[in-house]
Amino acid sequence: MALAQAEGVDLQEAAAVLKATRPTAQDLFYGIQRVLKEVEGGRPALDVAQEIADDYETACRAIGEHGAHLIEDGMRLNTHCNAGWLATVDWGTATAPMYVAKRRGRDFFVWVDETRPRCQGSRLTAFELGHEGIRHAVIADNATGALMARGEIDLVIVGTDRVARNGDVANKIGTYSSAVVAKENGIPFYVAAPTATIDAGSATGADIPIEERDPEEVSCMFGWDAVSDREGIVRIAPEGSPVRNIAFDVTPARFVTGIITEKGIFEAEKIADALDKQG
Amino acid sequence: MALAQAEGVDLQEAAAVLKATRPTAQDLFYGIQRVLKEVEGGRPALDVAQEIADDYETACRAIGEHGAHLIEDGMRLNTHCNAGWLATVDWGTATAPMYVAKRRGRDFFVWVDETRPRCQGSRLTAFELGHEGIRHAVIADNATGALMARGEIDLVIVGTDRVARNGDVANKIGTYSSAVVAKENGIPFYVAAPTATIDAGSATGADIPIEERDPEEVSCMFGWDAVSDREGIVRIAPEGSPVRNIAFDVTPARFVTGIITEKGIFEAEKIADALDKQG
Repeated sequence: MALAQAEGVDLQEAAAVLKATRPTAQDLFYGIQRVLKEVEGGRPALDVAQEIADDYETACRAIGEHGAHLIEDGMRLNTHCNAGWLATVDWGTATAPMYVAKRRGRDFFVWVDETRPRCQGSRLTAFELGHEGIRHAVIADNATGALMARGEIDLVIVGTDRVARNGDVANKIGTYSSAVVAKENGIPFYVAAPTATIDAGSATGADIPIEERDPEEVSCMFGWDAVSDREGIVRIAPEGSPVRNIAFDVTPARFVTGIITEKGIFEAEKIADALDKQG
Repeated sequence: MALAQAEGVDLQEAAAVLKATRPTAQDLFYGIQRVLKEVEGGRPALDVAQEIADDYETACRAIGEHGAHLIEDGMRLNTHCNAGWLATVDWGTATAPMYVAKRRGRDFFVWVDETRPRCQGSRLTAFELGHEGIRHAVIADNATGALMARGEIDLVIVGTDRVARNGDVANKIGTYSSAVVAKENGIPFYVAAPTATIDAGSATGADIPIEERDPEEVSCMFGWDAVSDREGIVRIAPEGSPVRNIAFDVTPARFVTGIITEKGIFEAEKIADALDKQG
């Protein structure tokens, strides 16, 4: 980082490398732009980076405060992928309302979608919830809809990688189906998002680039092999079968009950108001 | 089997053991009852069993003939789980229309849901389609809804384990969500079912027992380990996290465009008519 500060060209190169890593997540671009802009104005890059991390923590905590009001005793929640402290800073986004509600003594339960293909739900979110002492169970993504239809899910909170100006949200693949089935069953479906995730440049979800990833994430599964006591990889599809691995999907605003930001909870269609509102 | 014929008690015991293996699949009970009844009437059990297999093959082939009309050149199909020749007899149920259409020279493509937790889609259906020379790609179940929303799926055909009298269908977990999202996107959603799968004793889907299975099917994944050149199992969820493994779900008749039987294609709500119709 010291090098990057000393030589502007390297910082630009680093920015280009980081931007090229993932096309969908808006706060990645937000962070890069903020560092570049403030370094241009004379500030050390590391100071700006630390400030971004601090702001993110403050925003996530505020998301938790606003969202915790949605969680009542006895509720059965559902979440998809990992939008917790392993993915963001300290509180997470989708998990922040749960962690604040838990600290306020609320007793609730969380159905954790495993979130194929990378299983960030079973690998990361379940780990976090266990660490936080929150009752939960892991389910195959296929079971979420059936649990909704059975009346076993009261509230869904997920994160998002990018929110368009019209309230459409991009998130980990599978979010769209959950939102459609939640609406069919009258279940509130909330998205937690720091306003840094809102992309003023995307008019609708159709403007959000969707990352496609390595087919081996679907055709193979990695995890802990207890027999050999090492990480192992097992193949679960024929070598000769093609695979398509779409990493994100877009949920239209009409399926989103509300977006929980650090500035309060907004109707999805009115999320652009959050950009103007003072924090 | 000779023993079973000779001693009625053993056949009853065998029936009880088989019945206890799986609670959801109707044709299992149909087959057992048919053998028991005809053996009581004096026929050898093995003859009846062979007759059932032959009838099943004939029914599946007829399902293929009726369903093949739904498949047009250029279509992108979707299926869930395995309802192919590995699961039934020779033609499969959901796959029969594909195999007949292929033999008639139709050119189409199939998106294969991997079907967590047991991955019968990626392990079995993809294998079958490759064997039949049908173009296909394996996807995570989470991707099905997104592909529907993008307009990349034209037709869904799935199998079923049991059809209630009102046309509700039980099938592998995840079918319900696919059907809801298909309807949201105006995509025809067909269920292929020999009439032996219709349970006159179930008035609605609520009467169908739903099997729950070993949590390790979700928390661990088995497959081929190329490094050790053996079957391997990897853990993908924390040891301490509870897991719920619901194996089937019920799709209400209103989400089913039609049920393809050996006697023709029926509106789901009128499937009871198929029981009376001559084959």
